[in-house]
Amino acid sequence: MLDLRPLSMVIGYMLMALGASMTIPALFDFAAGNRDWQGFLLSSALTLFAGLALALTGRAPKELLTQINLRQAFLLTSLSWIMISVFAALPFIFVKVHLSVPDAIFESVSGFTTTGSTVIVGLDTTAPGTLLWRGLTHWIGGVGIVVTAIAMLPLLQVGGMQLFHMESSDRSEEKILPRMAQIAQTTGLIYLGLSLACALSFWAGGMSPFDAAVHMMGTVSGGGFSTSDKSFANWDSVPLDMAAILFMFLAALPLILFWPAVHGKPMVLLGNSQVRAFFLITTAAIAILTIFQWSTGLNEGWQALRYAAFNTVSIITNTGFMNTDYGVWGPFATTYFICIALIGGCSGSTASGLKIFRVQVLYLAMVNQIKRVMYPNGVFTAHYNNRPLSDATISSVTGFLFLFLLTFGGSGLLLAALGLDMTTAFSAAAAMLSNSGPGMGPIVGPAGNFSTMSAPQIWVLTVTMLLGRLELLTVYVLFLPRFWRR
Amino acid sequence: MLDLRPLSMVIGYMLMALGASMTIPALFDFAAGNRDWQGFLLSSALTLFAGLALALTGRAPKELLTQINLRQAFLLTSLSWIMISVFAALPFIFVKVHLSVPDAIFESVSGFTTTGSTVIVGLDTTAPGTLLWRGLTHWIGGVGIVVTAIAMLPLLQVGGMQLFHMESSDRSEEKILPRMAQIAQTTGLIYLGLSLACALSFWAGGMSPFDAAVHMMGTVSGGGFSTSDKSFANWDSVPLDMAAILFMFLAALPLILFWPAVHGKPMVLLGNSQVRAFFLITTAAIAILTIFQWSTGLNEGWQALRYAAFNTVSIITNTGFMNTDYGVWGPFATTYFICIALIGGCSGSTASGLKIFRVQVLYLAMVNQIKRVMYPNGVFTAHYNNRPLSDATISSVTGFLFLFLLTFGGSGLLLAALGLDMTTAFSAAAAMLSNSGPGMGPIVGPAGNFSTMSAPQIWVLTVTMLLGRLELLTVYVLFLPRFWRR
Repeated sequence: MLDLRPLSMVIGYMLMALGASMTIPALFDFAAGNRDWQGFLLSSALTLFAGLALALTGRAPKELLTQINLRQAFLLTSLSWIMISVFAALPFIFVKVHLSVPDAIFESVSGFTTTGSTVIVGLDTTAPGTLLWRGLTHWIGGVGIVVTAIAMLPLLQVGGMQLFHMESSDRSEEKILPRMAQIAQTTGLIYLGLSLACALSFWAGGMSPFDAAVHMMGTVSGGGFSTSDKSFANWDSVPLDMAAILFMFLAALPLILFWPAVHGKPMVLLGNSQVRAFFLITTAAIAILTIFQWSTGLNEGWQALRYAAFNTVSIITNTGFMNTDYGVWGPFATTYFICIALIGGCSGSTASGLKIFRVQVLYLAMVNQIKRVMYPNGVFTAHYNNRPLSDATISSVTGFLFLFLLTFGGSGLLLAALGLDMTTAFSAAAAMLSNSGPGMGPIVGPAGNFSTMSAPQIWVLTVTMLLGRLELLTVYVLFLPRFWRR
Repeated sequence: MLDLRPLSMVIGYMLMALGASMTIPALFDFAAGNRDWQGFLLSSALTLFAGLALALTGRAPKELLTQINLRQAFLLTSLSWIMISVFAALPFIFVKVHLSVPDAIFESVSGFTTTGSTVIVGLDTTAPGTLLWRGLTHWIGGVGIVVTAIAMLPLLQVGGMQLFHMESSDRSEEKILPRMAQIAQTTGLIYLGLSLACALSFWAGGMSPFDAAVHMMGTVSGGGFSTSDKSFANWDSVPLDMAAILFMFLAALPLILFWPAVHGKPMVLLGNSQVRAFFLITTAAIAILTIFQWSTGLNEGWQALRYAAFNTVSIITNTGFMNTDYGVWGPFATTYFICIALIGGCSGSTASGLKIFRVQVLYLAMVNQIKRVMYPNGVFTAHYNNRPLSDATISSVTGFLFLFLLTFGGSGLLLAALGLDMTTAFSAAAAMLSNSGPGMGPIVGPAGNFSTMSAPQIWVLTVTMLLGRLELLTVYVLFLPRFWRR
């Protein structure tokens, strides 16, 4: 039997913190003389009450909390993301935007998973509390996934994550919580530092303090919610674009490596295999998109480079801001953006997608395979970050890739079966699975919006976002009968 | 230094056989009072001459032939397919269809790789010699690839093919040729038997002897060239459709397993893991497409099942015949057909694509990964055909898959960059890479044709067909500098 008490308690505390944070947008709306503050306070009260109830229900000896086992960890990861998303959706139902239940949950999941797709039309005239709450879901979700990814997923050995064990022998269960707390603290500090620098840059670049704060939350989290329907195109400012490119890119690096970097060891970050590959892939992708614009005459000179750099970094880091409507750039651009969205950023960052290290492992497997074909009697071992890469790890990544492609295909097929055209269905599936945000085509493209989606389509999109954010396996194991046996 | 003499000699003999076979369509055109016989004889003479010249140039002691090494085997495989395709294209330039050089080579490569895409419009009024020659390229290419795949590729350890070593210790080089000859002979007999049964069935089903013969060549080879622009829809006959389904399916099974099957050991075929998985996947795919037609009201009752069964089997076996224009069935069907084309049939058959055994290995890797996630301290070994499946084999398949997807993406992107819309570009890339034939959309769909493609597009398509047919790695290694060193 699974002991659900520690889970109930942890989720209860999380909900109480969430409920408390809802008072911030309430204050903003109250100050702006906007009646939405009532909706936020109501949501806050409901969430606090639910949190308290769960925490009390799960009251258990403190030892139980420090001895969470593997099955509990799986269930906790999925359940906490779902519960937080559901309660964070309450304000969207109660305040002036008055979303339907599926739409509200979509918006909330899109926030916490740092996807950044929205069903709200007319952001430029939306109340500040609502805009701030959307930003906060990004900001909390961003740091939440980094902590989840660094501390939990390697323990769970999801899809080759065992590559990131700091010390591979150190997997005894009693050490889970202390190490998790330490990593969470360091990461939190780095995240705060990035946030501060980013917000100041946006402010210095010409945004109002409020816009700077909301866009900062969408940037360092890899989210993408804006305060304008036109996203960064609303400001059309080169310094702002450059600041966004810098901080989107930084937030897609393994955050924990900033710690040694600011303590006099920059090579730990700059020499990291994943960071280097990410830089190379991003640079190559920007070059391709620049040349594409030049050759098709879509944009010329520096303007082409500016659009290429901003939107490539925005999509490959799975952020989803845009500074021009590339949704009208035709089929090459469609495929290009789907591909780079699926690649995603580095593991240990706020980015999602397949992740750079998995692309590297697949690449190394390909090179090894070519070598083995040429020298059938030779023995070849691939190396990753100066350590031998075992066939078992490659096999793990393969299993993950197969599941990733199945989920992408399944989600796209379901959306197509629910009536979307092929470009919309598959670009939306890619945007959700990679948590990048904008799809392609007139409906869900960068200038589009998810508000026209039917309720069944919205549910498919919502589930795909959660699957992508939690690296698939974390959720899928819960559907295995054997998970619940014993 | 690579000794090219044995290659020159082998290819010389092949070209002489090819030249000789060109007299068959010449005879048919002569009998029909069609002046095309001159074009065939001219092509035949040129090919015989080139073959003779190569054979004489490469004249070498017989021992050299029996001691072909690995690098020679790679080069021979690619070169022989290219040379044969180029010379087999000559008639298409000289006879009445008068194709341009790129179009003629496309048609010839499409024939030998058993792709079955065509640039010829108006098949119903095309001269018999030309129709027969197209059929013959399929028929020769079909048995050619089975022999290549069974005898050569496992030795070359391409993408997990080592699974099919009969005896894994038996890789000494002196045994290559005798075993190759024995397997080729057995496979040839099986292929002949299938051909005879298939042609008789088509004739009994109502086709003229000529139509039956040409369609037989397109069926048992997994090709798809027809004598009518409307393919099997021209006959609109349930018995003919059923015969085609049966023989397309049989030809996509590992042909060598028919030998024990007809010698009283049917379980060697029926109990084979790959055969069972292929049957299951095909049945599920037919069910999905039937339900899709019912639910969308495209077709009703048995008619829906008939269309689903025929076109699913046709595409998953990479044949490419059609009995209705499913190109107008919308985005779900588009994706469906791209996916099943890429899956393909069994290894050791005339089918192409990723192949069933690789899908099985990826599936097993996924299951193993889920088990490892659930029980991190457990040791799990996947089994394939009752033998343990090593992580090294999974790693090989992974390398192949990555290359397969890169090639698919690269080919699709190139076609899109050359001006095709997304559906056309990627469905055509999938159709070429999997050698299945029809893409989707109005241009290259089942009712469409490749005749409107520009020369650069035709070259991309042609190269993709060859890459798909030769399992990528066989060709790619030739582009490695280290292949040519030493």
